[in-house]
Amino acid sequence: MNKHFLIIPAILFLFMTLNSLSAQQRARDLGIQIGVLPIGANNSITDVEGVLVGHYTKIEGESIRTGVTAILPHKGNLFQAKVPAAVFVGNGFGKLAGSTQIEELGNIESPIILTNTMSVAAGIQGIIDYTIHQTGNEQIQSVNAVVGETNDGYLNDIRGQHISKEHVLSAIESAKAGLVKEGNVGAGTGTVCFGFKGGIGTSSRKLPKTLGGYTIGVLVQTNFGGVLQIDGVPVGVELGKYSFMDHLASVDGSCMIIIATDAPISNRNLKRIAQRAMMGLAKTGGIASNGSGDYVIAFSTNEENRIRHQEKPLTLEENRFLRNDDLSPLFLATIEATEEAIINSLFAAEDMSGKDGKNVKALPKNEVLEIMGRYNKIVR
Amino acid sequence: MNKHFLIIPAILFLFMTLNSLSAQQRARDLGIQIGVLPIGANNSITDVEGVLVGHYTKIEGESIRTGVTAILPHKGNLFQAKVPAAVFVGNGFGKLAGSTQIEELGNIESPIILTNTMSVAAGIQGIIDYTIHQTGNEQIQSVNAVVGETNDGYLNDIRGQHISKEHVLSAIESAKAGLVKEGNVGAGTGTVCFGFKGGIGTSSRKLPKTLGGYTIGVLVQTNFGGVLQIDGVPVGVELGKYSFMDHLASVDGSCMIIIATDAPISNRNLKRIAQRAMMGLAKTGGIASNGSGDYVIAFSTNEENRIRHQEKPLTLEENRFLRNDDLSPLFLATIEATEEAIINSLFAAEDMSGKDGKNVKALPKNEVLEIMGRYNKIVR
Amino acid sequence: MNKHFLIIPAILFLFMTLNSLSAQQRARDLGIQIGVLPIGANNSITDVEGVLVGHYTKIEGESIRTGVTAILPHKGNLFQAKVPAAVFVGNGFGKLAGSTQIEELGNIESPIILTNTMSVAAGIQGIIDYTIHQTGNEQIQSVNAVVGETNDGYLNDIRGQHISKEHVLSAIESAKAGLVKEGNVGAGTGTVCFGFKGGIGTSSRKLPKTLGGYTIGVLVQTNFGGVLQIDGVPVGVELGKYSFMDHLASVDGSCMIIIATDAPISNRNLKRIAQRAMMGLAKTGGIASNGSGDYVIAFSTNEENRIRHQEKPLTLEENRFLRNDDLSPLFLATIEATEEAIINSLFAAEDMSGKDGKNVKALPKNEVLEIMGRYNKIVR
Amino acid sequence: MNKHFLIIPAILFLFMTLNSLSAQQRARDLGIQIGVLPIGANNSITDVEGVLVGHYTKIEGESIRTGVTAILPHKGNLFQAKVPAAVFVGNGFGKLAGSTQIEELGNIESPIILTNTMSVAAGIQGIIDYTIHQTGNEQIQSVNAVVGETNDGYLNDIRGQHISKEHVLSAIESAKAGLVKEGNVGAGTGTVCFGFKGGIGTSSRKLPKTLGGYTIGVLVQTNFGGVLQIDGVPVGVELGKYSFMDHLASVDGSCMIIIATDAPISNRNLKRIAQRAMMGLAKTGGIASNGSGDYVIAFSTNEENRIRHQEKPLTLEENRFLRNDDLSPLFLATIEATEEAIINSLFAAEDMSGKDGKNVKALPKNEVLEIMGRYNKIVR
Repeated sequence: MNKHFLIIPAILFLFMTLNSLSAQQRARDLGIQIGVLPIGANNSITDVEGVLVGHYTKIEGESIRTGVTAILPHKGNLFQAKVPAAVFVGNGFGKLAGSTQIEELGNIESPIILTNTMSVAAGIQGIIDYTIHQTGNEQIQSVNAVVGETNDGYLNDIRGQHISKEHVLSAIESAKAGLVKEGNVGAGTGTVCFGFKGGIGTSSRKLPKTLGGYTIGVLVQTNFGGVLQIDGVPVGVELGKYSFMDHLASVDGSCMIIIATDAPISNRNLKRIAQRAMMGLAKTGGIASNGSGDYVIAFSTNEENRIRHQEKPLTLEENRFLRNDDLSPLFLATIEATEEAIINSLFAAEDMSGKDGKNVKALPKNEVLEIMGRYNKIVR
Repeated sequence: MNKHFLIIPAILFLFMTLNSLSAQQRARDLGIQIGVLPIGANNSITDVEGVLVGHYTKIEGESIRTGVTAILPHKGNLFQAKVPAAVFVGNGFGKLAGSTQIEELGNIESPIILTNTMSVAAGIQGIIDYTIHQTGNEQIQSVNAVVGETNDGYLNDIRGQHISKEHVLSAIESAKAGLVKEGNVGAGTGTVCFGFKGGIGTSSRKLPKTLGGYTIGVLVQTNFGGVLQIDGVPVGVELGKYSFMDHLASVDGSCMIIIATDAPISNRNLKRIAQRAMMGLAKTGGIASNGSGDYVIAFSTNEENRIRHQEKPLTLEENRFLRNDDLSPLFLATIEATEEAIINSLFAAEDMSGKDGKNVKALPKNEVLEIMGRYNKIVR
Repeated sequence: MNKHFLIIPAILFLFMTLNSLSAQQRARDLGIQIGVLPIGANNSITDVEGVLVGHYTKIEGESIRTGVTAILPHKGNLFQAKVPAAVFVGNGFGKLAGSTQIEELGNIESPIILTNTMSVAAGIQGIIDYTIHQTGNEQIQSVNAVVGETNDGYLNDIRGQHISKEHVLSAIESAKAGLVKEGNVGAGTGTVCFGFKGGIGTSSRKLPKTLGGYTIGVLVQTNFGGVLQIDGVPVGVELGKYSFMDHLASVDGSCMIIIATDAPISNRNLKRIAQRAMMGLAKTGGIASNGSGDYVIAFSTNEENRIRHQEKPLTLEENRFLRNDDLSPLFLATIEATEEAIINSLFAAEDMSGKDGKNVKALPKNEVLEIMGRYNKIVR
Repeated sequence: MNKHFLIIPAILFLFMTLNSLSAQQRARDLGIQIGVLPIGANNSITDVEGVLVGHYTKIEGESIRTGVTAILPHKGNLFQAKVPAAVFVGNGFGKLAGSTQIEELGNIESPIILTNTMSVAAGIQGIIDYTIHQTGNEQIQSVNAVVGETNDGYLNDIRGQHISKEHVLSAIESAKAGLVKEGNVGAGTGTVCFGFKGGIGTSSRKLPKTLGGYTIGVLVQTNFGGVLQIDGVPVGVELGKYSFMDHLASVDGSCMIIIATDAPISNRNLKRIAQRAMMGLAKTGGIASNGSGDYVIAFSTNEENRIRHQEKPLTLEENRFLRNDDLSPLFLATIEATEEAIINSLFAAEDMSGKDGKNVKALPKNEVLEIMGRYNKIVR
């Protein structure tokens, strides 16, 4: 995995790359290779078998730029077959719904919904509606809806609360495996990250068999600030666009991070994995600023450890979990996939105009690649 | 404060009491004197100056038995003048909205809404609607709505989600100082506690000047189980109605506890106060069962420590707070007021029939007073 | 389980009881029957099979009144076969060693040592010495010593630090199953509780088979204040001795609470059990005052869930745990056993004189029993 | 602050640098310029006025390679004038003493001691001895000793427990302002980081006046693993030495991080600052592996906010604290200073042989600088 560079081939490669640059291309396709661990098949949260992702994107008129992203831990009845889960609060200036029950009971029993700050209620309503109408759930009277958000109010008329429960249901119902659309889509439609257009991003790592062979998948909704670094390269400084460059610069915003894994992990160790995601965010130059609502939700899809809603009294739960000692590779995988998912959100997002005639530019990819090359960080 | 009893006068008093028993009478009026500290003027959360409480009660047809209770820390613009606040999670099987931001920033910026488990979204929408339309809040794009709940689904058609944001606004707008209606009202309309009809209850303690002279006010929404004790008397056992009497007995349910104080308390010490409320709940025989969502929210109304929404950058916050060393009397006051508020909810609640022809009886007050007398716990 | 009383027999019983009162008699022997659940064989933490308790008591000259109590979760090599465990902080004004590792890894790998506030270092040294010299531990270079304390400095020359690691080793080596000595012994030698002589106390509950048949055992080191209640009876008020009776009264001190269970419980649910112990403390009138270091440590002795120190990499841990839904009876058992263990410590402790000629009286048992009778709380 | 590079001058500079390389030179002297914020006068934790640091280094025979580092928040009586403080647990596989009281009361009342894992007891004893013998502390009977550790057992005979309280007192007594010795000194004598010799490192940031003008100082004891990055450059990969390069590679170890600031910060916001330090650690490639005890302790030296040990009852604490809104620059400063302190520990540490003939090489600085140059990250 040692990276050998020759300056001239790198420059040639760079030129070729710039010529073929298209919206489809992700950072890795362009030679940005974050971390040391191998990626999954789609470099996506959906590389974790069974995980489904759906988007509802709402772009209307001059000032509606928002949406919903739904992540389903598995395609079955989530309420009846809950998944071990945990939340880590990177910075709690946010409105995440559902966190205390996840912490207390150690599981998630609903789709995870991401949307804008003022639409958490619609997220809850959509989840409740979806859940109570599923076959088998006719009697349930309590649903712990998990809804995260970031504030897209710079581009979006967020006070207008343009998301309804129908939009949430639409995101849930469209959820599917395979490639995940990134950038200005779903809950990332109107977000801003490091001063550029943010959005949805995803990435994954698949551990080698000797380290367990498990997959970690990450999906992010990026809407935060700091001093952008891409694979260690000081892109924000080079572009002259970073927090505190002058004292007026805003760094606020938020990042929602969702982690899925097929590894058999207890809720306690899922919390430890969730905590590592903030270390991946750190490597992009994020600082979890005061105004940022940075939350990480992690769950394990492993079928052996599902929690059935009801059981015969005194039935013991039989679990097979990874031991503490074997977690470290998953920590590294989480850090790498989170870092890359954030960078992917920036590469996928495109220019967006919105409310009050404001306009947010996408990351200038050609310029960024040129900078990356200058720092010897384009791999081919 | 030593209590001297003579058996005969106590019995006479008991008879007189039983004759005059009416819905208006609270436990203390009937000779049940919990704790050693003096109460406030109304023995109510509104004894803390500035605190307002409003109810919206919805009883319709055979199966709608629910409502909303709103607690406002002060009558001004809460978003612009936030109050120091904290949350303690007694048992997190619940859907409390707003907790992580309270924990991170140490304050509350909205009314506190209590309602049923499936109507948290309506609570959030009501708070947002209320807040963004207040004068001075024209630009705000983020509101941390604080919404607690308990599950009234035994009597109420909770799956029907019969609370809307208009009901929430109605509770907020009707909030007032002075006496607080208890029992089958607002968010307590359909709740069940220790197998009897629960509801809203409130109580307060006013410390003597030598201990600071501060007031602690508590409001509860009672919907939980256990082995009922009233002022130490084993009422649940005597009535033959308590959890695990046989193995089928349900103990689930929840309790929301709101604590207000005029004492100048930092968010860290408010969290410590909040934690003590669970000790008051314990003294009623509650056990914070697995299925219970028991949350305590505490705030300080002290005007000197309000947090203004925006300030000139780098302005220091000037606080004057009670020291750690002086908190213990407030801990005792919290424990006592919580215990009494729960008992008050039981004394105020009346028989209620609801969904599917179910019926929940009020605490049999005459019988309870007779038991209390037998255990020498009627004070006159 | 309904309690029927006749006043005259109760009085007769009381007289008989008072005549036969001896140091050996525990509260339950004297007719004080706390709670609704049955007790274990010895009404002791050692009713949980495998749990061992040892004391080292140091009473020397006029001013040394201290000691060590050791609790061993099982008699094997604790480091090699760790037990699932959790800590709950009731009030963190204390010096508990080992808490963060228990929280992170979910287990305990050493004896639990209780001693005085200034001797925590000796406790750590004793545990390390014990552990690194056990057969099989020749290579280990890290031990998470768990040491709790309360401050016996009222009677004991605590600044003199009279506990050494040898005393700790002595307590560990003398640990045994069966009856546990209570009162002025081990870490309870010099403690004060509710203004009376405190000490070590223990109690247990054994659930009926229909609720799982599991045992909860509790051991306490009592050194705290408040407004003493015994089985709901206001003994502190009746004796005219309680906190804030006048504003100078001190309530500080601490309580260490150790919970053992043979139920198969995950570390997450052990934490929930630990949290309930504070509810038992509340029922004795404790208030977790500012100066109190109130900590609860809970562990499960269940052999199937032991955590082996090392395993072949990637070996999965196979656990069989009680489900969340089945925990509530254990919560009630914990509350009851904690309440009774505290009362037992008061009944077992005897008058003690110490440093600077100070003297702390034992609970006046005859007077207490008379009060209990007056409140109809003596059961025969 | 934009960095312009010309390749040829950079190479020339590199050669000049390599020629003049000496143990005294820190990363920054060699052209490694981490972050965008300016450093303090000594680029050290002691840039925060009043903070003192002392070391005791113990290198004896073939196998004793350990020591003690003491950090004093101010030079006065710390017990009588406590400082607002907080702890953040990055990964709790460690033995930090004192954390729960810091969390509960929000302050530190003693020197902070760092040492090896098996010598925490000696650290506690040294602090107690130091504290109870200070003038003014004649009556105190409780000291919350704060002792952190990392495991130097690879090079040091850690089972021998070669640190005594006298060594701790020696570190405390030698504490001074000004330049802090880094590398193989004090508690860093025997530590290993990223497979190279680790040790003590320090760094600081001084915010521009427009952002408050405050100073953040960080001191680290580095003993952890991961995939080393220096200012974003993949040094670990380039040197072929990083975790999981093969599946046997160990990543365990720990990092203690101490943060001082003269900014007036409440304990709640100090905890938020502490949390950001883990983001600085992340940027060096640390992963907070399972076996790592990663703790951050943060305190504010600001004199206006000292907490006096005792006060007249009911005296209010008068505080002037930075508002939440103004914290973000301090977050960035913390991240940068932590990252640089870790790198400084690696640059300062030298080859060390120890127990069992083992030898740990220092970071190969010439080679590293060559790599840094290749990635265009040498600034002149």
